[in-house]
Amino acid sequence: MRIVITGGAGFLGRKLARRILELGALTDASGTKRQVEEVLLLDVVAAPGLDDARLRARSGDIADPAVVRDAVDERTDSVFHLAAVVSGEAEADFDLGWRVNFDATRALLERCRALPRPPKVVFTSSCAVFGGTLPDVVPDTQQLTPQSSYGAQKACGELLVWDYTRKGMVDGRSLRLPTVSVRPGKPNKAASSFASGIIREPLNGVEAICPVAPATGMWLTSPRTVVDNIVVAHEAPAAAFGATRSINLPGISTTVAGMIASLARVAGADVAARIVMRHDPAIDRIVRTWPRDFDTVFARSLGMRADVDFDGIIRQYTSDELRR
Amino acid sequence: MRIVITGGAGFLGRKLARRILELGALTDASGTKRQVEEVLLLDVVAAPGLDDARLRARSGDIADPAVVRDAVDERTDSVFHLAAVVSGEAEADFDLGWRVNFDATRALLERCRALPRPPKVVFTSSCAVFGGTLPDVVPDTQQLTPQSSYGAQKACGELLVWDYTRKGMVDGRSLRLPTVSVRPGKPNKAASSFASGIIREPLNGVEAICPVAPATGMWLTSPRTVVDNIVVAHEAPAAAFGATRSINLPGISTTVAGMIASLARVAGADVAARIVMRHDPAIDRIVRTWPRDFDTVFARSLGMRADVDFDGIIRQYTSDELRR
Repeated sequence: MRIVITGGAGFLGRKLARRILELGALTDASGTKRQVEEVLLLDVVAAPGLDDARLRARSGDIADPAVVRDAVDERTDSVFHLAAVVSGEAEADFDLGWRVNFDATRALLERCRALPRPPKVVFTSSCAVFGGTLPDVVPDTQQLTPQSSYGAQKACGELLVWDYTRKGMVDGRSLRLPTVSVRPGKPNKAASSFASGIIREPLNGVEAICPVAPATGMWLTSPRTVVDNIVVAHEAPAAAFGATRSINLPGISTTVAGMIASLARVAGADVAARIVMRHDPAIDRIVRTWPRDFDTVFARSLGMRADVDFDGIIRQYTSDELRR
Repeated sequence: MRIVITGGAGFLGRKLARRILELGALTDASGTKRQVEEVLLLDVVAAPGLDDARLRARSGDIADPAVVRDAVDERTDSVFHLAAVVSGEAEADFDLGWRVNFDATRALLERCRALPRPPKVVFTSSCAVFGGTLPDVVPDTQQLTPQSSYGAQKACGELLVWDYTRKGMVDGRSLRLPTVSVRPGKPNKAASSFASGIIREPLNGVEAICPVAPATGMWLTSPRTVVDNIVVAHEAPAAAFGATRSINLPGISTTVAGMIASLARVAGADVAARIVMRHDPAIDRIVRTWPRDFDTVFARSLGMRADVDFDGIIRQYTSDELRR
């Protein structure tokens, strides 16, 4: 198997690569399980830590068809398409968001379609495809009502993946990821960035700003769990899917207050006290439209799973990221 | 009001133009009711019958941004975007369908956005955005599961209209049209073409082929009713809409057998006997995925209405089209 991960230098991309290398084999579009020979990390920035002979890295803009053509070729078996302009940035720069989140996805699908043996395509979409007035628990059949450009771009990307798949041009799967917490590193322009920051910064002895109300509902996944679920989506047989290729991924439903209580339980009240509540209307406006709970029947039928609770997610972060 | 109708030389485009001229005034994006000064019919083919001083026609490919730029300018108050590659053709030619049904819609929205006073945009989508396993009666909250490229392109077009509207770049409305019957003229490459053909041809003394089973469910609207509903959508205040700008339009639910029975009742058994059942798997595969009944709560709240029954729709056709 030769695998391309777009956005491969990012946190999730690197974690996914590591998991794939650890597994050692994946199922190709013909249904055959094969050894992983190469994982190519494609990203605008250089990927760090190429500590496995099977890892390769390439820098380039995913929105440039020449870059895509160069990275995805006749030897590519699977593409994990993670590269995106994040929600806050896509809302601030409409044209950039549509160009990267939609046009680049389309160009990638076109490239795959043109190959003699089109690779599998796993596209990371988002729960931001839903918004507005939502049921307390969102079912698999929930309609698409994005309330951000990021959500609209991901929704259109899903429809592209589905139409290319339905026509037999690629074997695609679209995954609506919950908010991933706890991400290591620095805050980014995602509206959900605080969902990692309010845990990560206090654990590192730094003050963190929480821009939304404590009662704000959150649908969360740990990095480990979401990476496992991305692999499950890749491995699922094409026959498991019906009239769509979009999957709502499992997560846990909590509130910002619940996350803070978890932090106090796991790390102490003094650590949780490093969170400063400071309302940011722009972030709040986006986050408030996101769903807070799902019934992920289809995902679970494929073998996907959720984390047990947020306390465990915090412990996973301290174990995976802080111990290094 | 200066109005542009894309696909304006087509049957619906011309009928809509006539209705707008008859009404004499429409509401602009600022909420002001104004006299109609001009209706420009933009189409790839020349529009016939410019029998009103306010009617203009222009030929050009809607997929050519220069054509759009030329037709839609700072004086344009409203655009009714009807131009499309029909379902059967979009399924046969994937690239053409995406280029005309999606890219041209996007280019049109971009043009409107760039104008100092962006016009209202009414986009005709389709019930083909739904498919697969559907409830017997489709609610306003039904998820998008297109089972044709036409449906996928229209779904993405709706998401574009919504995102441009949400961002305040245009004031858009997307209408999911039922199958329009009875259309006059010749059959076209729409998978639904037979839904007019099996009524029109027998009434004109000609044999008609029905490519789908008698039990096939249909969601239908007469031309007069759909044109009225398109105008209602244009006139609806922006405040009437919630987390989407897509509207399922009212229709009547019947079967192909029910349509044939109507024809026998209205025109006689000898006329209905001119329908020849000849199964076409390609058409049947598309039509079978379409919904057959809707609960159009939102549309009715805006003041839209459905026809009474299919007998009445046939009588409307004989009165509007055959008497001329």
